[in-house]
Amino acid sequence: MLINKLHSTNHQDVPRSLGDATCAILGGGGFLGTNLALALQQGGARVRAIGRREPQFEAMRGVDWRQGDITDISFLATALDGYDTIFHLAQASTPFSSNIDKIGDIERSLISTVRLLELCREVGVKRVIFLSSGGTVYGIPSGLPVRETAPTHPITSYGINKLAIEKYLALYERLYGLEYRVIRLANPYGPFQLALNNQGVVAAFALRALRDEPIEVWGDGTAIRDFIFVSDAVEAIIAAATHEGDARIFNVGSGVGRSISEVLGALETELNRRLIVQFRDSRSSDVPAIVLDINLAAEELGWTPAIDLSSGLRRTIEWLSTYLRTHV
Amino acid sequence: MLINKLHSTNHQDVPRSLGDATCAILGGGGFLGTNLALALQQGGARVRAIGRREPQFEAMRGVDWRQGDITDISFLATALDGYDTIFHLAQASTPFSSNIDKIGDIERSLISTVRLLELCREVGVKRVIFLSSGGTVYGIPSGLPVRETAPTHPITSYGINKLAIEKYLALYERLYGLEYRVIRLANPYGPFQLALNNQGVVAAFALRALRDEPIEVWGDGTAIRDFIFVSDAVEAIIAAATHEGDARIFNVGSGVGRSISEVLGALETELNRRLIVQFRDSRSSDVPAIVLDINLAAEELGWTPAIDLSSGLRRTIEWLSTYLRTHV
Repeated sequence: MLINKLHSTNHQDVPRSLGDATCAILGGGGFLGTNLALALQQGGARVRAIGRREPQFEAMRGVDWRQGDITDISFLATALDGYDTIFHLAQASTPFSSNIDKIGDIERSLISTVRLLELCREVGVKRVIFLSSGGTVYGIPSGLPVRETAPTHPITSYGINKLAIEKYLALYERLYGLEYRVIRLANPYGPFQLALNNQGVVAAFALRALRDEPIEVWGDGTAIRDFIFVSDAVEAIIAAATHEGDARIFNVGSGVGRSISEVLGALETELNRRLIVQFRDSRSSDVPAIVLDINLAAEELGWTPAIDLSSGLRRTIEWLSTYLRTHV
Repeated sequence: MLINKLHSTNHQDVPRSLGDATCAILGGGGFLGTNLALALQQGGARVRAIGRREPQFEAMRGVDWRQGDITDISFLATALDGYDTIFHLAQASTPFSSNIDKIGDIERSLISTVRLLELCREVGVKRVIFLSSGGTVYGIPSGLPVRETAPTHPITSYGINKLAIEKYLALYERLYGLEYRVIRLANPYGPFQLALNNQGVVAAFALRALRDEPIEVWGDGTAIRDFIFVSDAVEAIIAAATHEGDARIFNVGSGVGRSISEVLGALETELNRRLIVQFRDSRSSDVPAIVLDINLAAEELGWTPAIDLSSGLRRTIEWLSTYLRTHV
């Protein structure tokens, strides 16, 4: 099976590095959460996945699962009890939607997370690994690739709240000794991504291509993004859970910028067919270009991405094809 | 009268620079708001002061006043109608209190302000001048004096929310053309400061000294702060209202660091008496040292502070003495 092959190649050292940590994943039923849960479980860690909606994928059947909303503190208190490492992947909005309902975004993203931290402190959680956003916290960078120390001028409410959460994490560590690490993730893609909320252009493109539907592109295709295959992202996230140095915030991406047109071209190559593309006006919530400098993660986490774009796309297409064959 | 003397010396150019702007001050009844309202009014601008509690000082009698809470949007919509320049000085917490109730701080500080910005956008406000905090947004600086581009690692919820508000201001300008300027103010002191919420060490020290009460100091007196006399702060705030350059965020302080012990010594000199000082443990919400680099404000606002510490202390003592004679 593809999934087993993927994870057995990439995560052989999970049990050794995580020791006997107990891991809970918030946002555990989504794209990234599913990949992380499977990688941790296959590595031998004790894992609980927590999410609002039922897991979308059969692959999650063997994973301990609790369903509920992270804004429900009594639910969360029970669900997190006995877990020392919390992976916070839950997303309340997208960059685009966050600018439409800014106050709702503060409530569901920032306030929910501060309540979570308060709870973590109460129940004795040891470390929180927070999935921040390499694509939004910097805003429009003055130079590429962007280092973690670059100025942060988000152009979305989403990015502002990710940043505020990072700062509350630092405050909780300072005041109460609650450890944390922040992963400023680039654009992840790969198996288990279905682009349901219009997040994840690779999945959206590949899905439409496989269905022979026209592909919608916001902007003229020149926008630059940093795409990272999900197993690489998951390895960095797991490495952050046991990191011991002083650094707290890590860019995690491929370190390479690709234009949307380049990705479309690479997809055409892998699929061996012409894609039908419709260009639409770009959105004010999208930055023109972002590429992450990943040297800090390389040095501190001993991590580098292993899967290049074409093999990543091949695996993504393979997974999506199987999914479409068995689910539509 | 002291007050008239103060403001007529320092704000002769207010009407010229502000043109025919209409100014509303949120947090208009407090220390800074009173000074700003009087300066604007004496300079000939149309001013409305808005605050939760009745103005504390008779000097505000001649100023147009609306009483209400800034979280009450229907009140605010009426109170701000027809005003094009909003000075947002309202404070929902102190650095110390914000760490005790972090979620309340997000609600009353960050969310209230985003609601305000939404309202400003609706009623056609032209510019918001936001009073941020030079003493908290940087956290513990790696070098002094601190420039506006220095890393921001607040150690209080107060500082995190000031910073998040700065970023929402940038977002509202980008999305809707609502202009803004941010003043990262150092520690202001002077007339109309009564240190009611334990904010303002100069007023707290001077008040206790004048009453022959022992002075309580958090820490051992070595903490460094940047004290700015309030008329200097008010001049910078007013200059920001008409600033036309690209800069948005300005440090406003004296640019000079003073230890708490130095301030106590200067107070002893001005009062010509020994002070009784009780040292207490320092608080986790206090940074050990902060001094602001004020070169950007000098260049962009054509502003420099004019009142040195000893003359500032003299004026503060003079005002407090009169206040105590007539109010206690």
